[in-house]
Amino acid sequence: MVKVTFVKIGYIATSTIIDALLDERAGRKDLQMRVISSSVSMEEDAAIEVAKIAVGIPSDLYVIVSPNAAMPGPTKARAELKIAGKPIIVVSDEPSRKALKENPVEGVGYIVVMGDPMIGAKQSFLDPVEMALFNADAIKVLAVTGAFRVIQQELDKVIDQLGRGEKPTLPQVVIEKENALAAANISNPYAQGKAIAAFEAARRVANLSTEGTFKVEAPERYLPILVAAHELLREAAKLADEAREMEKANDTAARLTHFSKGETRKKIKLADKFEK
Amino acid sequence: MVKVTFVKIGYIATSTIIDALLDERAGRKDLQMRVISSSVSMEEDAAIEVAKIAVGIPSDLYVIVSPNAAMPGPTKARAELKIAGKPIIVVSDEPSRKALKENPVEGVGYIVVMGDPMIGAKQSFLDPVEMALFNADAIKVLAVTGAFRVIQQELDKVIDQLGRGEKPTLPQVVIEKENALAAANISNPYAQGKAIAAFEAARRVANLSTEGTFKVEAPERYLPILVAAHELLREAAKLADEAREMEKANDTAARLTHFSKGETRKKIKLADKFEK
Amino acid sequence: MVKVTFVKIGYIATSTIIDALLDERAGRKDLQMRVISSSVSMEEDAAIEVAKIAVGIPSDLYVIVSPNAAMPGPTKARAELKIAGKPIIVVSDEPSRKALKENPVEGVGYIVVMGDPMIGAKQSFLDPVEMALFNADAIKVLAVTGAFRVIQQELDKVIDQLGRGEKPTLPQVVIEKENALAAANISNPYAQGKAIAAFEAARRVANLSTEGTFKVEAPERYLPILVAAHELLREAAKLADEAREMEKANDTAARLTHFSKGETRKKIKLADKFEK
Amino acid sequence: MVKVTFVKIGYIATSTIIDALLDERAGRKDLQMRVISSSVSMEEDAAIEVAKIAVGIPSDLYVIVSPNAAMPGPTKARAELKIAGKPIIVVSDEPSRKALKENPVEGVGYIVVMGDPMIGAKQSFLDPVEMALFNADAIKVLAVTGAFRVIQQELDKVIDQLGRGEKPTLPQVVIEKENALAAANISNPYAQGKAIAAFEAARRVANLSTEGTFKVEAPERYLPILVAAHELLREAAKLADEAREMEKANDTAARLTHFSKGETRKKIKLADKFEK
Amino acid sequence: MVKVTFVKIGYIATSTIIDALLDERAGRKDLQMRVISSSVSMEEDAAIEVAKIAVGIPSDLYVIVSPNAAMPGPTKARAELKIAGKPIIVVSDEPSRKALKENPVEGVGYIVVMGDPMIGAKQSFLDPVEMALFNADAIKVLAVTGAFRVIQQELDKVIDQLGRGEKPTLPQVVIEKENALAAANISNPYAQGKAIAAFEAARRVANLSTEGTFKVEAPERYLPILVAAHELLREAAKLADEAREMEKANDTAARLTHFSKGETRKKIKLADKFEK
Amino acid sequence: MVKVTFVKIGYIATSTIIDALLDERAGRKDLQMRVISSSVSMEEDAAIEVAKIAVGIPSDLYVIVSPNAAMPGPTKARAELKIAGKPIIVVSDEPSRKALKENPVEGVGYIVVMGDPMIGAKQSFLDPVEMALFNADAIKVLAVTGAFRVIQQELDKVIDQLGRGEKPTLPQVVIEKENALAAANISNPYAQGKAIAAFEAARRVANLSTEGTFKVEAPERYLPILVAAHELLREAAKLADEAREMEKANDTAARLTHFSKGETRKKIKLADKFEK
Repeated sequence: MVKVTFVKIGYIATSTIIDALLDERAGRKDLQMRVISSSVSMEEDAAIEVAKIAVGIPSDLYVIVSPNAAMPGPTKARAELKIAGKPIIVVSDEPSRKALKENPVEGVGYIVVMGDPMIGAKQSFLDPVEMALFNADAIKVLAVTGAFRVIQQELDKVIDQLGRGEKPTLPQVVIEKENALAAANISNPYAQGKAIAAFEAARRVANLSTEGTFKVEAPERYLPILVAAHELLREAAKLADEAREMEKANDTAARLTHFSKGETRKKIKLADKFEK
Repeated sequence: MVKVTFVKIGYIATSTIIDALLDERAGRKDLQMRVISSSVSMEEDAAIEVAKIAVGIPSDLYVIVSPNAAMPGPTKARAELKIAGKPIIVVSDEPSRKALKENPVEGVGYIVVMGDPMIGAKQSFLDPVEMALFNADAIKVLAVTGAFRVIQQELDKVIDQLGRGEKPTLPQVVIEKENALAAANISNPYAQGKAIAAFEAARRVANLSTEGTFKVEAPERYLPILVAAHELLREAAKLADEAREMEKANDTAARLTHFSKGETRKKIKLADKFEK
Repeated sequence: MVKVTFVKIGYIATSTIIDALLDERAGRKDLQMRVISSSVSMEEDAAIEVAKIAVGIPSDLYVIVSPNAAMPGPTKARAELKIAGKPIIVVSDEPSRKALKENPVEGVGYIVVMGDPMIGAKQSFLDPVEMALFNADAIKVLAVTGAFRVIQQELDKVIDQLGRGEKPTLPQVVIEKENALAAANISNPYAQGKAIAAFEAARRVANLSTEGTFKVEAPERYLPILVAAHELLREAAKLADEAREMEKANDTAARLTHFSKGETRKKIKLADKFEK
Repeated sequence: MVKVTFVKIGYIATSTIIDALLDERAGRKDLQMRVISSSVSMEEDAAIEVAKIAVGIPSDLYVIVSPNAAMPGPTKARAELKIAGKPIIVVSDEPSRKALKENPVEGVGYIVVMGDPMIGAKQSFLDPVEMALFNADAIKVLAVTGAFRVIQQELDKVIDQLGRGEKPTLPQVVIEKENALAAANISNPYAQGKAIAAFEAARRVANLSTEGTFKVEAPERYLPILVAAHELLREAAKLADEAREMEKANDTAARLTHFSKGETRKKIKLADKFEK
Repeated sequence: MVKVTFVKIGYIATSTIIDALLDERAGRKDLQMRVISSSVSMEEDAAIEVAKIAVGIPSDLYVIVSPNAAMPGPTKARAELKIAGKPIIVVSDEPSRKALKENPVEGVGYIVVMGDPMIGAKQSFLDPVEMALFNADAIKVLAVTGAFRVIQQELDKVIDQLGRGEKPTLPQVVIEKENALAAANISNPYAQGKAIAAFEAARRVANLSTEGTFKVEAPERYLPILVAAHELLREAAKLADEAREMEKANDTAARLTHFSKGETRKKIKLADKFEK
Repeated sequence: MVKVTFVKIGYIATSTIIDALLDERAGRKDLQMRVISSSVSMEEDAAIEVAKIAVGIPSDLYVIVSPNAAMPGPTKARAELKIAGKPIIVVSDEPSRKALKENPVEGVGYIVVMGDPMIGAKQSFLDPVEMALFNADAIKVLAVTGAFRVIQQELDKVIDQLGRGEKPTLPQVVIEKENALAAANISNPYAQGKAIAAFEAARRVANLSTEGTFKVEAPERYLPILVAAHELLREAAKLADEAREMEKANDTAARLTHFSKGETRKKIKLADKFEK
């Protein structure tokens, strides 16, 4: 049994269910997962603290999930986890791409999830309901466009290698529109286009929320920009839903479910049986 | 500073962001949160293990989040956490209502979240994309209908009492359509009705997914029932969205944001300033 | 020619077009139908009066349609019609299920239509426009989910037996999600799921309208509950519409039309010819 | 108490609930209604037969509802009812306009309901589900656009006069877009426009279904025309729904409910009390 | 190379992109197009002036596009262009049908575009945004329903004849629902019905905008009628979109693209290659 | 009377109705407009030819509208028009921004319309229907987001100055989300956000269509990217529509109509009178 410990520092939408992507209902016998999180905090102290707890948990693999992995908190957590001497995979969002790609670290793989945008981080948008809705929309986009499938497949590959006692090849992956689509298992070409459109809209959301949060000071200017960020994500989720509905209409909404030994099996038509 | 440790055992939709509801972007100076989770596993061993880690984290309050809190895993975790001698709040879904209400335990409060339904737990629906979409829809429903606001307010009350050094009154709350609505801060009466309708539809989802998962064996029978469960939740999320859009159209989408000392401030019109 | 007389006492959505379901445009040569109704009244006097008129009309079969068939009005009407010595079929809604199932009467069959919910029966919702919209939504749900097809098929079976001079086997049918779906002739599995979801949502409507009408007294409480009932039915109708649109998109919206000798013929693709 | 007997011969959408428009839930003490119907049949024999039954029912007013009132069936029914010596009101659809307007008959009023279109009367569209959906859409259009309110108000005026022992002034009304709108009680000007648009679309449906049913013989030509008729009505219902949703969003969805003495009272905001 | 000069006098929706329909991105080597326009003006002087400029441009064919071609401006422009001695094709809207059909002129063909309705020509609707939206909706309807394809094919036929040095047969075509559909290349029968429904709704728009603009004087009456005209066109565009989405869902959204020699090639599935 | 001649070289969405934005129905007495266009061609020869014709038309102002104004065709046209010695305004799309901003030319103003994206310029997307739909969606976005209002106001300012015999100040304007919004006259803050979101989505469309057209060669790669471009624009148009519907629901859909002397007057509520 492979033991994977997730260290979550702060929140991106991917944080909310990344581990559940690997074993939707605790059916796998080959995998044990634990999660340690500093919740919303990205402070160095908090990050180090949770990393230390994680080091204390017997693990074959660590997965750190956080916004901008180049920030001091996640960086320190990484350093702390290195002590355990186990492979590490960093999962983070667009702002961390440059740092992760340009400074690859031995024993540390990465998955950069483009299209997992920052919330409009001004008080007007930090209401719990607004925050929850923003995350729900982001989850929809990441699920349908294939981003979550890339994450799941990359992690599963490593788990599989670990399970077979091999030294794993750690991912160095930036999830963009095309590799996401390749993983999405969408059949209809217009549904494919809708999925990409949703993904790209979500990336534009990141531009808007960054601008509205950090670059514009006057409320009368940043309010419409941040509303726009949230509205565009809502619409991206609707595009994702349109894509999914097209696939359902054609009975081609692919299912790739984990079975007990950890392998995924696939079926296309709902009434079909899963193929090994 | 009040220290809250969440112990998450298995997943309900509430699990995904419950801690983020209390401090959307790490702005509070009065609150420190940690999360320990067994991920999807509800096994006793796993539950005990994470509870033990949690006991080792200095905490003023423990919040256990799990499906059916009456199951052995969550029950053992509770017992384990009792050792720490700190107040405990159990957050769980509909199947745990009876047990929690009928056997109140000294030092253990509870919040039962009706309307956070079980996924269709057959392999055809345990695909990561399907699972993620189901959770996104559930988050939308719980956010708009007021369920998440009830959770946030109940936890905040206890945190506030702890922060003031008082012995907290632990919640004994079942979130149903009416107390959810009361917390939802929806102004338009038709939007209120849509919110309740979404909440009730989500409850019906639970009936369907339970029936399709546990009571029906033939795939040709459980497949349409479980599709129905997921479709009904998708539609409930659309109802929630309709309610929210109505509030936006009237510029009455209330904002209740946490400020640095932990208090929430409110505004109704987006261009308004927050009131203390 | 078989002569069927409908006695309608009060209104459920099924009342509005039940007879038209058997012969959409007066094309059948094997069937003659008459309708006698007390309109909205369910008073005993009214019920007896219309039943007496019905007894005076030469009939091979009586069909009584009313809300809650266990109420005094419909009960008395049934008793009165028994005098004619002809088979009787009672068509009613969910509240009559228990009485009808538990006390079967010789010569009286029944069809209980779950998913034909009571309107929110408080003055605020008894506006003619609101009432008409509620019924239109209910008709949509009952049509697409297969409920109306069950009614039509059950009545047609009896008519067919009568036409052949046989003693009819009277139906003892409760229309629930699965037997409705079986009659609905929906091909796509997601459309099937949407249909069931619509049906179940309509049943939840009944819970809400009953609660809001009879169990809650304060307007500030029952208003949102009854709005919710009506909103949920509107959304159920939209789900039914989604199911139908999927079938149209696949050109599988089945047609089962009555032909002049009373038999139904079927076709799937619109450009096809009807098969006998 | 005023006694009104409806004689329904064949079906238009208005037939389905016209009497319920006058007393949504049997709350009126000033009104007793009975309905006698030949169901779908418009044959002369059937019409005469039901008219004769109706003559036997003590009535202060007869209301005949049928498609094209100039056809032999409804005409004969009218003649038969004249024997009772009571006022008669004919309610019918667009094809009867010319005859009713040009040949007014002493003691016979009329209400012509434009926008209550004929179904596509070819076998492909005479499936019960298709028929029911067509009627549901028509009901939605007639309800929201004000057509049903005109009918209700006109009938109520006569009932009121009869109740006061006066000789009633019988209506001579053609319901068109503007008098319908005047009765619709819609506040927002764009919702008003949507209502008129729905009404006019429904009128175009009648052109299409008439053309496809009677003027075109080749299936490859009439099938798309009749599909278009039904699709246009579905879209008209959606326009009506948009209008209604706008009114709900502004909390101006007017309620005009019948009270026990037969008077209607009105309120605009849902939380208001009814005004006398 | 065939030289075609468009003379545009005033605006209908067809004016906005009629020439682009023939060569979407300047890929044709067999065709040169020029456009001369009096912009919104339909004055005689303006029409004559632009026609004179057009006469000065070497052309093998003139296409005059204007509202109501029977008005003095377009009529004078036609007379002026006759001087060039080249074939002329008049493209106009419904009001010109009678004149064009009844008075065919040697050397002048015509295409009457039913379903290209006049805007609500009262000041309240002559705002640039409202005007632009109205045109966008009209373009959508004309594109999907096949009207634009008829125009393109008719013009291409003449261009092809001219290109081969033949005397062209000039079109005498009124675009109505059926010939439009025949050109639309829509596969699904329900999508076909939706397209026709959109076309017919657009024709009803013309009735409403004509009534509201010219026949009704009181603002309180013409405002809702003209809002209705614009709302109905918006809904027609939505119907067109529904038709297109159905075709996309089935991957049958046909493509008929012009290639460099001027011929169109077709493909149905998006991944297919074009067939000659 | 001010004479404005538009020279259109190739197509952007703005080309289709730019002149109509200034005088929606030929009501202005202070303005005469003419249009000369090379249709879809951007060849130098064609551009020079139409510019020469335009020079021959007495004009107080020339407006050149084209894609990428830095291309040889539009550049040569500009040079040719300079001969007339009249002010020139260049209206073009995003790719021309750099050249126009960095090399201002005496006597030549510019308006760069961000959010008017290039079509997917591969044969699969150069079907007339697809092209027309793309333009219709772009028009919707540009209309609602305020882009068209900026163009209209900038041109009107210059026309006004010319009309008063002044030397005009030529615009040097890049239309981006914020100055567009400022012109859009949208009241509701969420509708404002939706408008900006639509604008930004349209800009992302340009990225996608440029990538798919010029940077990617394999059809299996560019097809989904270009479908995505078109789908994203369709969704942007839906967002624009949502914004407009919100304004309608609040009766705040502003109207700014040109009156006969060329001034615009404004009203907010539809039933209001225009204010000078």
